[in-house]
Amino acid sequence: MQVEIITIGDEILIGQIVDTNSAWMATELNKAGFEVVQITSVHDSEKQITDALESALERAEVVLFTGGIGPTKDDITKLTLCRYFGAELVFDAGVYANIENLLKNRMRAMNELTKTQAMVPDKAVIISNPIGTAPITWFNKDGKVVVSMPGVPYEMKRAMEFEIIPRLQKQFQPQAIIHKTLLVAGYPESALALKIADWENALPEQIHLAYLPHFNIVKLRLSAAQDDFVSTKNEIDRQITLLKVILGNAVIAEEDIVLEELVGRHLKAAGKTLATAESCTGGHIAHRITTIAGSSAYFRGSVIAYSNEIKSRLLGVDEQVINRHGAVSEEVVREMALGVADKLSADYVIATSGIAGPDGGTDEKPVGTVWIAVGTKDSLVSRKFQFSLDRQLNIERTTQTALLMLMQIANSE
Amino acid sequence: MQVEIITIGDEILIGQIVDTNSAWMATELNKAGFEVVQITSVHDSEKQITDALESALERAEVVLFTGGIGPTKDDITKLTLCRYFGAELVFDAGVYANIENLLKNRMRAMNELTKTQAMVPDKAVIISNPIGTAPITWFNKDGKVVVSMPGVPYEMKRAMEFEIIPRLQKQFQPQAIIHKTLLVAGYPESALALKIADWENALPEQIHLAYLPHFNIVKLRLSAAQDDFVSTKNEIDRQITLLKVILGNAVIAEEDIVLEELVGRHLKAAGKTLATAESCTGGHIAHRITTIAGSSAYFRGSVIAYSNEIKSRLLGVDEQVINRHGAVSEEVVREMALGVADKLSADYVIATSGIAGPDGGTDEKPVGTVWIAVGTKDSLVSRKFQFSLDRQLNIERTTQTALLMLMQIANSE
Repeated sequence: MQVEIITIGDEILIGQIVDTNSAWMATELNKAGFEVVQITSVHDSEKQITDALESALERAEVVLFTGGIGPTKDDITKLTLCRYFGAELVFDAGVYANIENLLKNRMRAMNELTKTQAMVPDKAVIISNPIGTAPITWFNKDGKVVVSMPGVPYEMKRAMEFEIIPRLQKQFQPQAIIHKTLLVAGYPESALALKIADWENALPEQIHLAYLPHFNIVKLRLSAAQDDFVSTKNEIDRQITLLKVILGNAVIAEEDIVLEELVGRHLKAAGKTLATAESCTGGHIAHRITTIAGSSAYFRGSVIAYSNEIKSRLLGVDEQVINRHGAVSEEVVREMALGVADKLSADYVIATSGIAGPDGGTDEKPVGTVWIAVGTKDSLVSRKFQFSLDRQLNIERTTQTALLMLMQIANSE
Repeated sequence: MQVEIITIGDEILIGQIVDTNSAWMATELNKAGFEVVQITSVHDSEKQITDALESALERAEVVLFTGGIGPTKDDITKLTLCRYFGAELVFDAGVYANIENLLKNRMRAMNELTKTQAMVPDKAVIISNPIGTAPITWFNKDGKVVVSMPGVPYEMKRAMEFEIIPRLQKQFQPQAIIHKTLLVAGYPESALALKIADWENALPEQIHLAYLPHFNIVKLRLSAAQDDFVSTKNEIDRQITLLKVILGNAVIAEEDIVLEELVGRHLKAAGKTLATAESCTGGHIAHRITTIAGSSAYFRGSVIAYSNEIKSRLLGVDEQVINRHGAVSEEVVREMALGVADKLSADYVIATSGIAGPDGGTDEKPVGTVWIAVGTKDSLVSRKFQFSLDRQLNIERTTQTALLMLMQIANSE
């Protein structure tokens, strides 16, 4: 079952925003059994939108538009689709009530422009968008489907997940595609490929293997599309059992899950708590941990110590130790870890100190030098890393590495 | 002068990677005076590549391909272009020497697959790629240009910057395109559109206006392409002056910049420091502030207090106040702010306390209830917000709102 995605908006074509929607949509569509044939980005131009739509309908059964449906003049997708499908705009009381409700919650008044969001094409099925003012419109034509949804990522995601994908599945009943993902830690992609080469070569033809490396983790995704759901599933399970024999402890999860959720589950099950003392990561570890719902059950909090004085004052790091070894040192990162364990009464702690860059590097400690300490008050592991010259990358790598260290320590206990 | 970008590769269409190349290319092309009409992503399929090329050549003078030119079987762009342009593959000694040299540096041996990279279309101009094994191929046809380059971001960037853009500029001598962006705070998109409707309606035809809303900020982008760079630029500047009269203080920046950078610049210029006390944002404010290089000059640090006990112990919040008013209350968020100002000796502080969700809501304080306090020890502003039911969104909205409040307070001093 073939799908095309068309993203609309000048901001994409002048490079002001990166189109992250398409990749997310493609992943979800794939899981649901749909193949994305082409992704096209066009300007807010009636001719371009219409041309792209006609061309997409030659290749695919489903065309999904994102963007270009705001209330302002530059957003012309709704009018373009009306003209294409010969539809008239009519007032929709349900959409209007939703807009009123949203505005009330945001303590804002209805105005003429917002009101126009309640005018919808009479030939479309209107799907409500409880978190935004623009509704989702769904056109059926000659057995094909054209859907227009907001480009705002969270509105798009909600619409896809709860409305569009379920409806597409119901209408088209695509073949089941089974995906199973293993998270493997400790192997670079190429080393992992060599390690499992014999297993991979012996994989049945219908099972497709993909390597998705992300920092210190490689996701191995096995996929298969088959009519007989049960036998495909059994075969994938059998292959995973074989793979786990080869990889042992390196398999840290048997599902596609982020590290902070894995850590959270583990802490919750063990009834343990966590706190972080962050310097170079500047709160990114705490942020990732607290994106998980229910993290307050195991996350105590964090001290972000962006100056030496705070490291001493709030975490009790000995000033002389800082002076002697520098803030980016094994001694300091360990004292930070012990300090936060004490001050925040946490079972597990993570501490980071490093030179994120682009400035602050020296010959001895160049940009990318990072110390991480992870463990408990009684058993603390500290390691030095040499990451990159890129600040963002250094923050992300340090966070990912620290969470992985915690996962491994917690697993071994 | 019109350009199209075609990115080739299954990995984009199954959502395995986000296409960041296109946005980078579009930005650079725009600066150089080229307009990107459409961006298209297709599979490694001869038919799809050929169809996309033919369709692009109907709209644009220049078509830029990225990806699909590796040495493995699935990469078929080179053969497809040969067939399209009626070219033969011939051995290129210069490309071969470059590959040999690269492999030597990486301590790897030449193999049959890599050797094929030195076979190039005889009808193309071959542009060397000193940092990768695949050369860049440049076809001229009927006054139009088709270029194929690697999809590896750093190889693509080098090729664009040093070879492709300079050659395109020489060949086409494009018009200048001028962009100017204003950040406007305090108006929802539709209210802003109404507020500036008269001004917008009177805009000269050649100036295009776009609204890009992001949480509490709307980016207004004015663009124009014109032969006479000076008069276009003067006209845009004149329009911006008019707009600023209408919007006053709501214009918080006259460039496309993130809030944390704007805040950082302001603090640096004023010689002031900042600290945060975060509950519901869980470190996200600290994280955003510390993504800015040089933030250690003004950011002191943060206390992430994810439990009431930590709020009392590290920030000195009175336990009785918590018991009486609850952790999500004006009283507590103000005490958190004052506490962190004191403990971290910061001039400005931000404190947050709220119910991010999905659990923890009550009738009186439903999910999405957030208190934010921002200011100095002597002058603290506290406000209550009712955001959404979505945890991630509540964290992001709270962060964005808090940074904006800080910006406005700092600006008014």
